[in-house]
Amino acid sequence: MKFAVFNLKGRTQLGRVNEAGNAIECFDMPEASIVRDGVAALIDQPLPKVTETVPISEVELLAPVPRPSRNIFCVGKNYHEHAKEFAASGFDSSAAKGTVPEAPIVFSKLPETVVKTGAPILIDASVSTAIDYEAELAVIIGKTGRNVSKEDALSHVWGYTVVNDVTARDLQGHHSQWLIGKSQDTFCPMGPWAVTADDIDLSDTPVKCWINDELRQDSNTGLLIFDIPTIIAAISNGITLQPGDVIATGTPAGVGIGFNPPKYLQPGDKVRVEIGGIGTLENPVEAY
Amino acid sequence: MKFAVFNLKGRTQLGRVNEAGNAIECFDMPEASIVRDGVAALIDQPLPKVTETVPISEVELLAPVPRPSRNIFCVGKNYHEHAKEFAASGFDSSAAKGTVPEAPIVFSKLPETVVKTGAPILIDASVSTAIDYEAELAVIIGKTGRNVSKEDALSHVWGYTVVNDVTARDLQGHHSQWLIGKSQDTFCPMGPWAVTADDIDLSDTPVKCWINDELRQDSNTGLLIFDIPTIIAAISNGITLQPGDVIATGTPAGVGIGFNPPKYLQPGDKVRVEIGGIGTLENPVEAY
Repeated sequence: MKFAVFNLKGRTQLGRVNEAGNAIECFDMPEASIVRDGVAALIDQPLPKVTETVPISEVELLAPVPRPSRNIFCVGKNYHEHAKEFAASGFDSSAAKGTVPEAPIVFSKLPETVVKTGAPILIDASVSTAIDYEAELAVIIGKTGRNVSKEDALSHVWGYTVVNDVTARDLQGHHSQWLIGKSQDTFCPMGPWAVTADDIDLSDTPVKCWINDELRQDSNTGLLIFDIPTIIAAISNGITLQPGDVIATGTPAGVGIGFNPPKYLQPGDKVRVEIGGIGTLENPVEAY
Repeated sequence: MKFAVFNLKGRTQLGRVNEAGNAIECFDMPEASIVRDGVAALIDQPLPKVTETVPISEVELLAPVPRPSRNIFCVGKNYHEHAKEFAASGFDSSAAKGTVPEAPIVFSKLPETVVKTGAPILIDASVSTAIDYEAELAVIIGKTGRNVSKEDALSHVWGYTVVNDVTARDLQGHHSQWLIGKSQDTFCPMGPWAVTADDIDLSDTPVKCWINDELRQDSNTGLLIFDIPTIIAAISNGITLQPGDVIATGTPAGVGIGFNPPKYLQPGDKVRVEIGGIGTLENPVEAY
Protein backbone atom coordinates (compact mmCIF):
# COMPACT_ATOMS: atom_id res chain seq x y z
CA MET A 1 0.00 0.00 0.00
CA LYS A 2 1.09 3.56 -0.76
CA PHE A 3 0.69 6.31 1.83
CA ALA A 4 1.21 10.03 1.22
CA VAL A 5 1.50 13.14 3.37
CA PHE A 6 0.00 16.23 1.73
CA ASN A 7 -1.55 19.63 2.14
CA LEU A 8 -5.24 19.93 1.26
CA LYS A 9 -7.77 22.54 2.34
CA GLY A 10 -5.18 24.32 4.49
CA ARG A 11 -4.32 21.26 6.56
CA THR A 12 -1.51 18.70 6.56
CA GLN A 13 -3.16 15.33 5.97
CA LEU A 14 -2.23 11.70 5.45
CA GLY A 15 -3.91 9.25 3.14
CA ARG A 16 -3.74 6.14 1.01
CA VAL A 17 -2.81 6.47 -2.66
CA ASN A 18 -4.72 4.16 -5.00
CA GLU A 19 -2.99 1.60 -7.23
CA ALA A 20 -3.12 3.84 -10.29
CA GLY A 21 -1.46 6.64 -8.30
CA ASN A 22 -4.08 9.21 -9.30
CA ALA A 23 -6.33 9.46 -6.23
CA ILE A 24 -5.96 9.67 -2.44
CA GLU A 25 -8.24 8.46 0.32
CA CYS A 26 -7.85 11.09 3.06
CA PHE A 27 -7.63 9.77 6.63
CA ASP A 28 -9.39 11.11 9.69
CA MET A 29 -6.30 11.77 11.88
CA PRO A 30 -5.04 14.51 14.19
CA GLU A 31 -2.91 16.94 12.15
CA ALA A 32 -0.29 17.31 14.91
CA SER A 33 0.75 13.66 14.73
CA ILE A 34 1.10 13.87 10.93
CA VAL A 35 3.22 17.03 11.13
CA ARG A 36 5.42 15.39 13.77
CA ASP A 37 5.74 11.85 12.41
CA GLY A 38 4.62 11.85 8.77
CA VAL A 39 3.66 8.38 7.56
CA ALA A 40 5.22 6.98 10.76
CA ALA A 41 2.05 8.19 12.50
CA LEU A 42 0.42 5.05 11.03
CA ILE A 43 2.81 2.64 12.75
CA ASP A 44 1.00 0.22 15.07
CA GLN A 45 -2.32 1.97 14.37
CA PRO A 46 -5.39 0.52 12.67
CA LEU A 47 -6.02 2.31 9.36
CA PRO A 48 -8.05 5.46 10.13
CA LYS A 49 -11.48 6.17 8.69
CA VAL A 50 -11.54 7.74 5.22
CA THR A 51 -13.06 11.22 5.13
CA GLU A 52 -13.04 11.72 1.35
CA THR A 53 -11.29 10.61 -1.83
CA VAL A 54 -9.69 13.30 -3.98
CA PRO A 55 -7.75 13.37 -7.26
CA ILE A 56 -4.02 13.45 -6.52
CA SER A 57 -3.72 16.50 -8.78
CA GLU A 58 -5.66 18.48 -6.16
CA VAL A 59 -3.18 17.95 -3.30
CA GLU A 60 0.28 19.33 -2.59
CA LEU A 61 2.40 16.28 -1.83
CA LEU A 62 4.85 16.65 1.07
CA ALA A 63 7.76 14.39 2.01
CA PRO A 64 6.42 11.19 3.63
CA VAL A 65 8.59 11.88 6.71
CA PRO A 66 8.71 15.68 6.48
CA ARG A 67 10.95 16.13 9.53
CA PRO A 68 12.62 12.96 10.83
CA SER A 69 13.06 13.14 14.60
CA ARG A 70 16.83 12.86 14.26
CA ASN A 71 19.41 12.87 11.46
CA ILE A 72 18.79 10.52 8.56
CA PHE A 73 21.12 7.51 8.54
CA CYS A 74 22.90 7.08 5.19
CA VAL A 75 25.10 4.38 3.73
CA GLY A 76 28.02 5.25 1.44
CA LYS A 77 29.64 3.27 -1.40
CA ASN A 78 27.07 0.49 -1.29
CA TYR A 79 26.96 -0.58 -4.97
CA HIS A 80 30.09 -2.13 -6.59
CA GLU A 81 30.07 -0.02 -9.76
CA HIS A 82 29.55 3.16 -7.74
CA ALA A 83 32.34 2.23 -5.32
CA LYS A 84 34.64 1.92 -8.36
CA GLU A 85 33.61 5.23 -9.96
CA PHE A 86 33.95 7.02 -6.60
CA ALA A 87 37.43 5.59 -6.00
CA ALA A 88 38.48 6.54 -9.55
CA SER A 89 37.20 10.10 -9.14
CA GLY A 90 39.88 11.00 -6.59
CA PHE A 91 37.15 12.44 -4.33
CA ASP A 92 36.89 9.39 -2.09
CA SER A 93 37.41 10.58 1.46
CA SER A 94 35.81 7.60 3.13
CA ALA A 95 39.10 6.19 4.46
CA ALA A 96 37.70 2.72 3.83
CA LYS A 97 40.47 0.35 2.85
CA GLY A 98 40.15 -0.81 -0.74
CA THR A 99 37.53 0.14 -3.28
CA VAL A 100 34.80 -1.98 -1.72
CA PRO A 101 34.28 -1.25 1.99
CA GLU A 102 34.69 -4.03 4.56
CA ALA A 103 31.68 -2.80 6.56
CA PRO A 104 28.80 -0.42 5.84
CA ILE A 105 29.99 3.21 5.77
CA VAL A 106 27.35 5.02 7.82
CA PHE A 107 27.01 8.80 8.10
CA SER A 108 24.08 11.19 8.55
CA LYS A 109 22.16 14.10 7.04
CA LEU A 110 20.37 16.74 9.13
CA PRO A 111 16.58 16.24 9.31
CA GLU A 112 16.00 19.78 8.02
CA THR A 113 17.53 18.83 4.65
CA VAL A 114 14.28 17.06 3.73
CA VAL A 115 12.22 18.69 0.97
CA LYS A 116 9.16 17.45 -0.92
CA THR A 117 8.90 16.33 -4.53
CA GLY A 118 8.80 19.41 -6.74
CA ALA A 119 10.71 21.62 -4.31
CA PRO A 120 13.95 23.11 -5.58
CA ILE A 121 17.40 21.78 -4.73
CA LEU A 122 19.21 25.03 -4.01
CA ILE A 123 22.74 25.64 -5.20
CA ASP A 124 24.70 28.27 -3.29
CA ALA A 125 27.67 28.99 -5.54
CA SER A 126 29.40 30.76 -2.65
CA VAL A 127 29.44 27.47 -0.74
CA SER A 128 29.93 24.67 -3.32
CA THR A 129 30.67 24.31 -7.02
CA ALA A 130 30.41 20.50 -7.08
CA ILE A 131 26.85 19.46 -6.26
CA ASP A 132 25.87 15.93 -7.16
CA TYR A 133 22.73 13.72 -7.15
CA GLU A 134 22.41 10.24 -5.63
CA ALA A 135 19.26 8.16 -6.24
CA GLU A 136 18.54 5.89 -3.26
CA LEU A 137 16.00 3.52 -1.78
CA ALA A 138 15.26 4.63 1.80
CA VAL A 139 14.01 2.42 4.63
CA ILE A 140 11.46 3.67 7.18
CA ILE A 141 11.86 1.84 10.50
CA GLY A 142 8.68 0.65 12.19
CA LYS A 143 9.81 -0.97 15.43
CA THR A 144 12.25 -0.14 18.22
CA GLY A 145 15.31 -2.36 18.24
CA ARG A 146 18.89 -2.65 19.47
CA ASN A 147 21.40 -5.32 18.39
CA VAL A 148 18.90 -6.50 15.80
CA SER A 149 20.06 -9.66 14.01
CA LYS A 150 20.11 -9.89 10.21
CA GLU A 151 17.46 -12.58 10.51
CA ASP A 152 15.09 -10.27 12.41
CA ALA A 153 16.00 -7.07 10.58
CA LEU A 154 13.19 -6.95 8.02
CA SER A 155 10.58 -7.25 10.79
CA HIS A 156 11.78 -3.78 11.90
CA VAL A 157 11.01 -2.20 8.51
CA TRP A 158 7.67 -0.42 8.17
CA GLY A 159 8.17 0.65 4.57
CA TYR A 160 10.23 2.38 1.93
CA THR A 161 10.48 5.66 0.08
CA VAL A 162 12.70 7.40 -2.47
CA VAL A 163 15.41 9.91 -1.55
CA ASN A 164 17.95 11.92 -3.46
CA ASP A 165 21.08 12.07 -1.27
CA VAL A 166 22.30 15.35 -2.76
CA THR A 167 25.97 15.92 -1.98
CA ALA A 168 28.45 18.80 -2.20
CA ARG A 169 31.50 16.80 -3.34
CA ASP A 170 33.98 19.56 -2.54
CA LEU A 171 32.76 19.89 1.05
CA GLN A 172 32.51 16.10 1.43
CA GLY A 173 36.23 15.84 0.73
CA HIS A 174 37.34 19.06 2.43
CA HIS A 175 35.92 18.11 5.85
CA SER A 176 36.95 14.39 5.70
CA GLN A 177 33.81 13.33 7.55
CA TRP A 178 30.76 13.78 5.33
CA LEU A 179 28.16 15.53 7.52
CA ILE A 180 28.66 19.06 6.12
CA GLY A 181 28.79 18.03 2.45
CA LYS A 182 25.65 15.91 2.87
CA SER A 183 23.62 18.28 5.08
CA GLN A 184 23.38 21.45 3.01
CA ASP A 185 19.92 23.03 3.15
CA THR A 186 17.47 21.31 0.67
CA PHE A 187 19.81 18.35 0.10
CA CYS A 188 17.35 15.55 0.87
CA PRO A 189 14.42 15.46 -1.56
CA MET A 190 12.11 12.64 -0.36
CA GLY A 191 8.92 11.23 -1.86
CA PRO A 192 6.56 11.26 -3.62
CA TRP A 193 5.13 8.91 -0.95
CA ALA A 194 6.00 5.79 1.03
CA VAL A 195 5.06 2.17 0.41
CA THR A 196 4.66 -0.58 2.98
CA ALA A 197 7.36 -3.22 3.15
CA ASP A 198 5.34 -5.90 1.35
CA ASP A 199 5.24 -3.75 -1.81
CA ILE A 200 9.01 -4.02 -2.44
CA ASP A 201 11.03 -7.00 -3.66
CA LEU A 202 14.48 -6.12 -2.30
CA SER A 203 16.15 -8.64 -4.60
CA ASP A 204 14.82 -6.94 -7.73
CA THR A 205 13.79 -3.30 -7.50
CA PRO A 206 15.03 -0.88 -10.20
CA VAL A 207 16.72 2.39 -9.06
CA LYS A 208 17.01 5.02 -11.80
CA CYS A 209 17.91 8.67 -12.09
CA TRP A 210 17.52 11.07 -15.01
CA ILE A 211 19.01 14.55 -15.33
CA ASN A 212 16.97 16.50 -17.90
CA ASP A 213 15.76 13.27 -19.53
CA GLU A 214 19.30 11.81 -19.75
CA LEU A 215 19.33 8.47 -17.91
CA ARG A 216 22.36 8.63 -15.62
CA GLN A 217 21.73 5.94 -13.00
CA ASP A 218 20.16 2.60 -13.91
CA SER A 219 20.64 -0.16 -11.36
CA ASN A 220 18.77 -2.47 -9.03
CA THR A 221 18.62 -3.03 -5.27
CA GLY A 222 19.64 -6.63 -5.95
CA LEU A 223 23.14 -5.23 -6.55
CA LEU A 224 23.61 -3.66 -3.09
CA ILE A 225 26.96 -4.61 -1.53
CA PHE A 226 25.45 -4.63 1.99
CA ASP A 227 21.81 -5.64 1.86
CA ILE A 228 19.15 -4.06 4.04
CA PRO A 229 19.25 -6.69 6.82
CA THR A 230 23.03 -6.20 7.03
CA ILE A 231 22.63 -2.40 7.20
CA ILE A 232 20.00 -2.59 9.95
CA ALA A 233 22.12 -5.03 11.95
CA ALA A 234 25.17 -2.74 11.61
CA ILE A 235 23.40 0.47 12.65
CA SER A 236 21.51 -1.13 15.55
CA ASN A 237 24.76 -2.60 16.89
CA GLY A 238 24.79 -0.73 20.20
CA ILE A 239 22.32 1.89 18.94
CA THR A 240 18.56 1.79 19.57
CA LEU A 241 16.70 2.26 16.30
CA GLN A 242 13.32 3.96 16.63
CA PRO A 243 10.06 3.95 14.66
CA GLY A 244 10.24 6.70 12.03
CA ASP A 245 14.02 6.48 11.59
CA VAL A 246 14.99 6.83 7.94
CA ILE A 247 17.94 4.96 6.41
CA ALA A 248 19.13 5.86 2.90
CA THR A 249 20.75 2.70 1.55
CA GLY A 250 23.34 4.07 -0.90
CA THR A 251 23.44 5.08 -4.55
CA PRO A 252 24.43 3.10 -7.66
CA ALA A 253 26.90 4.15 -10.37
CA GLY A 254 26.24 7.12 -12.62
CA VAL A 255 26.59 10.07 -10.26
CA GLY A 256 28.06 13.30 -11.64
CA ILE A 257 31.49 12.74 -10.08
CA GLY A 258 31.79 9.48 -12.00
CA PHE A 259 32.06 11.30 -15.36
CA ASN A 260 35.24 12.84 -16.75
CA PRO A 261 34.85 15.76 -16.58
CA PRO A 262 32.27 15.54 -13.77
CA LYS A 263 28.65 16.42 -14.56
CA TYR A 264 27.53 18.42 -11.54
CA LEU A 265 24.06 19.83 -11.05
CA GLN A 266 23.43 23.31 -12.45
CA PRO A 267 20.56 25.76 -11.95
CA GLY A 268 17.88 24.91 -14.48
CA ASP A 269 18.47 21.14 -14.30
CA LYS A 270 15.68 18.74 -13.40
CA VAL A 271 16.49 15.61 -11.36
CA ARG A 272 14.10 12.66 -11.60
CA VAL A 273 14.59 9.61 -9.37
CA GLU A 274 12.40 6.56 -9.96
CA ILE A 275 12.26 3.42 -7.86
CA GLY A 276 10.19 0.48 -9.07
CA GLY A 277 7.16 -0.24 -6.91
CA ILE A 278 7.30 3.20 -5.26
CA GLY A 279 7.20 6.08 -7.73
CA THR A 280 8.97 9.14 -9.06
CA LEU A 281 10.65 11.96 -7.12
CA GLU A 282 11.33 15.02 -9.26
CA ASN A 283 13.09 18.22 -8.21
CA PRO A 284 14.29 21.26 -10.13
CA VAL A 285 17.70 22.76 -9.39
CA GLU A 286 17.80 26.49 -8.68
CA ALA A 287 20.35 29.06 -7.62
CA TYR A 288 20.12 29.89 -3.91
CA MET B 1 25.32 32.78 34.84
CA LYS B 2 24.82 29.05 35.33
CA PHE B 3 21.52 27.37 34.39
CA ALA B 4 20.53 23.81 35.22
CA VAL B 5 17.75 21.43 34.18
CA PHE B 6 16.65 19.13 37.00
CA ASN B 7 13.93 16.98 38.50
CA LEU B 8 12.36 18.26 41.71
CA LYS B 9 9.02 17.38 43.27
CA GLY B 10 8.15 15.10 40.37
CA ARG B 11 8.59 17.79 37.71
CA THR B 12 11.32 18.69 35.22
CA GLN B 13 12.38 22.23 36.08
CA LEU B 14 14.92 24.83 35.03
CA GLY B 15 16.74 27.23 37.31
CA ARG B 16 19.75 29.40 38.00
CA VAL B 17 22.64 27.92 39.93
CA ASN B 18 24.30 30.32 42.42
CA GLU B 19 27.98 31.28 42.21
CA ALA B 20 28.99 28.76 44.87
CA GLY B 21 27.23 26.01 42.93
CA ASN B 22 25.29 24.79 45.97
CA ALA B 23 21.80 26.24 45.46
CA ILE B 24 19.29 26.66 42.64
CA GLU B 25 16.67 29.33 42.08
CA CYS B 26 13.77 27.46 40.47
CA PHE B 27 12.00 29.23 37.59
CA ASP B 28 8.30 29.52 36.98
CA MET B 29 8.17 27.98 33.47
CA PRO B 30 6.01 25.50 31.55
CA GLU B 31 7.47 22.01 31.98
CA ALA B 32 6.82 21.05 28.33
CA SER B 33 9.22 23.68 26.99
CA ILE B 34 11.95 22.55 29.41
CA VAL B 35 11.52 18.89 28.46
CA ARG B 36 11.67 19.83 24.77
CA ASP B 37 14.42 22.46 24.74
CA GLY B 38 16.34 22.22 28.03
CA VAL B 39 18.24 25.43 28.81
CA ALA B 40 17.51 26.57 25.24
CA ALA B 41 13.99 27.35 26.49
CA LEU B 42 15.57 30.50 27.98
CA ILE B 43 16.80 31.85 24.63
CA ASP B 44 15.30 35.25 23.81
CA GLN B 45 13.15 35.11 26.95
CA PRO B 46 13.30 37.42 29.96
CA LEU B 47 14.43 35.49 33.06
CA PRO B 48 11.34 33.86 34.57
CA LYS B 49 10.11 34.52 38.09
CA VAL B 50 11.76 32.50 40.86
CA THR B 51 9.38 30.17 42.69
CA GLU B 52 11.78 28.95 45.38
CA THR B 53 15.48 28.46 46.13
CA VAL B 54 16.62 24.95 47.06
CA PRO B 55 19.94 23.32 47.98
CA ILE B 56 21.44 21.69 44.90
CA SER B 57 21.76 18.46 46.86
CA GLU B 58 17.95 18.19 46.81
CA VAL B 59 17.59 18.07 43.03
CA GLU B 60 18.37 15.43 40.42
CA LEU B 61 20.43 17.24 37.79
CA LEU B 62 19.58 16.40 34.17
CA ALA B 63 21.59 17.20 31.02
CA PRO B 64 21.20 20.92 30.18
CA VAL B 65 19.93 19.96 26.69
CA PRO B 66 18.40 16.58 27.54
CA ARG B 67 17.32 15.77 23.98
CA PRO B 68 18.80 18.01 21.27
CA SER B 69 16.33 18.45 18.40
CA ARG B 70 18.78 16.87 15.96
CA ASN B 71 22.14 15.10 16.10
CA ILE B 72 24.91 16.81 18.05
CA PHE B 73 27.58 18.34 15.82
CA CYS B 74 31.09 17.20 16.81
CA VAL B 75 34.58 18.22 15.73
CA GLY B 76 37.39 15.66 15.46
CA LYS B 77 41.16 16.02 15.85
CA ASN B 78 40.96 19.63 17.00
CA TYR B 79 43.94 19.84 19.41
CA HIS B 80 47.50 19.42 18.03
CA GLU B 81 48.72 16.94 20.66
CA HIS B 82 45.56 14.85 20.29
CA ALA B 83 45.85 14.87 16.48
CA LYS B 84 49.37 13.45 16.94
CA GLU B 85 48.39 10.74 19.43
CA PHE B 86 45.42 9.72 17.25
CA ALA B 87 47.58 9.48 14.10
CA ALA B 88 50.19 7.46 16.03
CA SER B 89 47.55 5.05 17.38
CA GLY B 90 46.85 3.59 13.94
CA PHE B 91 43.11 4.06 14.56
CA ASP B 92 42.83 7.27 12.55
CA SER B 93 40.08 6.73 10.00
CA SER B 94 39.41 10.40 9.36
CA ALA B 95 40.93 10.37 5.86
CA ALA B 96 42.22 13.88 6.55
CA LYS B 97 45.52 14.43 4.81
CA GLY B 98 48.39 14.83 7.27
CA THR B 99 48.26 14.70 11.05
CA VAL B 100 46.65 18.12 11.44
CA PRO B 101 43.44 18.49 9.39
CA GLU B 102 43.17 21.23 6.75
CA ALA B 103 39.55 21.98 7.72
CA PRO B 104 37.36 21.10 10.71
CA ILE B 105 36.39 17.40 10.68
CA VAL B 106 32.67 17.47 11.48
CA PHE B 107 30.56 14.43 12.29
CA SER B 108 27.53 13.80 14.51
CA LYS B 109 26.17 11.85 17.48
CA LEU B 110 22.52 10.84 17.83
CA PRO B 111 20.53 13.04 20.24
CA GLU B 112 19.47 9.99 22.27
CA THR B 113 23.10 9.42 23.32
CA VAL B 114 22.76 12.25 25.86
CA VAL B 115 22.79 11.22 29.53
CA LYS B 116 22.99 13.30 32.72
CA THR B 117 25.87 13.64 35.14
CA GLY B 118 25.93 10.58 37.36
CA ALA B 119 24.28 8.29 34.81
CA PRO B 120 26.25 5.24 33.74
CA ILE B 121 28.20 4.98 30.50
CA LEU B 122 27.18 1.49 29.40
CA ILE B 123 29.68 -0.91 27.88
CA ASP B 124 28.23 -3.68 25.76
CA ALA B 125 31.12 -6.12 25.39
CA SER B 126 29.24 -7.87 22.57
CA VAL B 127 29.45 -4.64 20.54
CA SER B 128 32.79 -2.97 21.41
CA THR B 129 35.95 -3.77 23.35
CA ALA B 130 37.61 -0.38 22.80
CA ILE B 131 35.54 2.31 24.49
CA ASP B 132 37.26 5.64 25.07
CA TYR B 133 36.54 8.99 26.80
CA GLU B 134 36.88 12.46 25.25
CA ALA B 135 36.54 15.58 27.44
CA GLU B 136 35.12 18.49 25.42
CA LEU B 137 33.77 21.99 25.67
CA ALA B 138 30.37 22.14 23.94
CA VAL B 139 28.74 25.20 22.40
CA ILE B 140 24.98 25.81 22.69
CA ILE B 141 23.74 27.89 19.74
CA GLY B 142 21.36 30.76 20.54
CA LYS B 143 20.49 32.29 17.19
CA THR B 144 19.48 31.02 13.75
CA GLY B 145 22.18 31.54 11.14
CA ARG B 146 23.44 30.39 7.75
CA ASN B 147 26.79 31.31 6.18
CA VAL B 148 27.78 32.95 9.48
CA SER B 149 31.12 34.77 9.27
CA LYS B 150 33.89 34.17 11.79
CA GLU B 151 33.46 37.78 12.89
CA ASP B 152 29.76 37.27 13.71
CA ALA B 153 30.05 33.71 14.97
CA LEU B 154 30.24 34.36 18.72
CA SER B 155 27.02 36.39 18.57
CA HIS B 156 25.31 33.09 17.67
CA VAL B 157 26.51 31.38 20.87
CA TRP B 158 24.08 31.30 23.79
CA GLY B 159 26.37 29.40 26.16
CA TYR B 160 28.54 26.40 26.88
CA THR B 161 28.45 23.08 28.66
CA VAL B 162 30.65 20.03 29.23
CA VAL B 163 30.36 16.82 27.23
CA ASN B 164 32.16 13.51 27.20
CA ASP B 165 32.29 12.40 23.54
CA VAL B 166 32.49 8.70 24.42
CA THR B 167 33.72 6.67 21.43
CA ALA B 168 33.90 2.99 20.45
CA ARG B 169 37.30 3.09 18.70
CA ASP B 170 36.85 -0.28 17.00
CA LEU B 171 33.52 0.74 15.44
CA GLN B 172 34.87 4.21 14.58
CA GLY B 173 37.55 2.59 12.43
CA HIS B 174 35.48 -0.35 11.15
CA HIS B 175 32.77 1.83 9.58
CA SER B 176 35.13 4.52 8.19
CA GLN B 177 32.62 7.27 8.89
CA TRP B 178 32.26 7.82 12.63
CA LEU B 179 28.50 7.95 13.28
CA ILE B 180 28.12 4.39 14.64
CA GLY B 181 31.22 4.48 16.86
CA LYS B 182 30.16 7.83 18.31
CA SER B 183 26.42 7.17 18.70
CA GLN B 184 26.26 4.12 20.93
CA ASP B 185 23.53 4.38 23.57
CA THR B 186 24.69 6.47 26.63
CA PHE B 187 27.75 7.83 24.77
CA CYS B 188 27.15 11.55 25.38
CA PRO B 189 27.26 12.48 29.07
CA MET B 190 26.43 16.22 29.27
CA GLY B 191 26.37 18.58 32.24
CA PRO B 192 26.28 19.28 35.10
CA TRP B 193 24.72 22.51 33.76
CA ALA B 194 25.26 25.22 31.15
CA VAL B 195 26.84 28.67 31.48
CA THR B 196 26.10 31.75 29.41
CA ALA B 197 28.69 32.81 26.86
CA ASP B 198 30.06 35.69 28.98
CA ASP B 199 31.21 33.20 31.65
CA ILE B 200 33.85 31.60 29.43
CA ASP B 201 37.21 32.98 28.25
CA LEU B 202 37.74 30.92 25.09
CA SER B 203 41.42 31.84 25.00
CA ASP B 204 42.08 30.35 28.42
CA THR B 205 39.68 27.71 29.73
CA PRO B 206 41.12 24.51 31.24
CA VAL B 207 39.76 21.15 29.96
CA LYS B 208 40.60 18.17 32.18
CA CYS B 209 39.62 14.54 32.51
CA TRP B 210 40.32 12.05 35.27
CA ILE B 211 39.78 8.29 35.19
CA ASN B 212 39.53 7.00 38.77
CA ASP B 213 41.48 10.02 40.08
CA GLU B 214 44.26 9.62 37.48
CA LEU B 215 44.55 12.86 35.50
CA ARG B 216 44.56 11.79 31.84
CA GLN B 217 43.64 14.96 29.91
CA ASP B 218 44.93 18.38 30.94
CA SER B 219 44.70 21.07 28.29
CA ASN B 220 43.12 24.41 27.49
CA THR B 221 40.68 25.74 24.89
CA GLY B 222 43.37 28.23 23.92
CA LEU B 223 45.07 25.29 22.18
CA LEU B 224 42.21 24.42 19.80
CA ILE B 225 43.41 24.03 16.19
CA PHE B 226 40.14 25.47 14.81
CA ASP B 227 38.68 28.00 17.24
CA ILE B 228 34.97 28.31 17.92
CA PRO B 229 34.30 31.11 15.38
CA THR B 230 36.02 28.98 12.71
CA ILE B 231 33.93 25.92 13.66
CA ILE B 232 30.65 27.86 13.54
CA ALA B 233 31.56 29.41 10.18
CA ALA B 234 32.43 25.96 8.78
CA ILE B 235 29.24 24.23 9.96
CA SER B 236 26.92 27.07 8.94
CA ASN B 237 28.47 27.12 5.45
CA GLY B 238 25.31 26.17 3.54
CA ILE B 239 23.61 24.78 6.67
CA THR B 240 21.14 26.73 8.81
CA LEU B 241 22.17 26.51 12.46
CA GLN B 242 19.29 26.66 14.94
CA PRO B 243 18.87 27.76 18.56
CA GLY B 244 19.52 24.76 20.81
CA ASP B 245 22.02 23.12 18.44
CA VAL B 246 24.95 21.62 20.36
CA ILE B 247 28.49 21.56 18.97
CA ALA B 248 31.18 19.52 20.76
CA THR B 249 34.46 21.22 19.90
CA GLY B 250 36.97 18.35 20.08
CA THR B 251 39.09 16.67 22.73
CA PRO B 252 42.71 17.28 23.78
CA ALA B 253 45.47 14.67 24.14
CA GLY B 254 45.30 11.96 26.77
CA VAL B 255 42.50 9.73 25.50
CA GLY B 256 42.79 6.00 26.11
CA ILE B 257 43.84 5.22 22.53
CA GLY B 258 46.86 7.49 22.97
CA PHE B 259 48.50 5.10 25.46
CA ASN B 260 50.51 2.01 24.51
CA PRO B 261 48.84 -0.29 25.28
CA PRO B 262 45.55 1.66 25.09
CA LYS B 263 43.69 2.41 28.34
CA TYR B 264 40.07 1.81 27.45
CA LEU B 265 37.15 2.30 29.82
CA GLN B 266 36.18 -0.71 31.94
CA PRO B 267 33.10 -1.41 34.08
CA GLY B 268 33.78 0.04 37.52
CA ASP B 269 35.72 3.06 36.21
CA LYS B 270 34.66 6.61 37.04
CA VAL B 271 35.13 9.36 34.41
CA ARG B 272 35.35 12.95 35.64
CA VAL B 273 35.47 15.82 33.13
CA GLU B 274 36.08 19.34 34.43
CA ILE B 275 35.99 22.55 32.42
CA GLY B 276 37.03 25.79 34.09
CA GLY B 277 34.18 28.26 34.55
CA ILE B 278 31.54 25.56 34.05
CA GLY B 279 31.88 22.60 36.41
CA THR B 280 32.36 18.87 36.72
CA LEU B 281 30.64 16.07 34.81
CA GLU B 282 31.11 12.67 36.44
CA ASN B 283 29.87 9.31 35.15
CA PRO B 284 30.46 5.74 36.26
CA VAL B 285 31.15 3.03 33.69
CA GLU B 286 28.97 -0.08 33.91
CA ALA B 287 28.46 -3.26 31.92
CA TYR B 288 25.38 -3.11 29.71
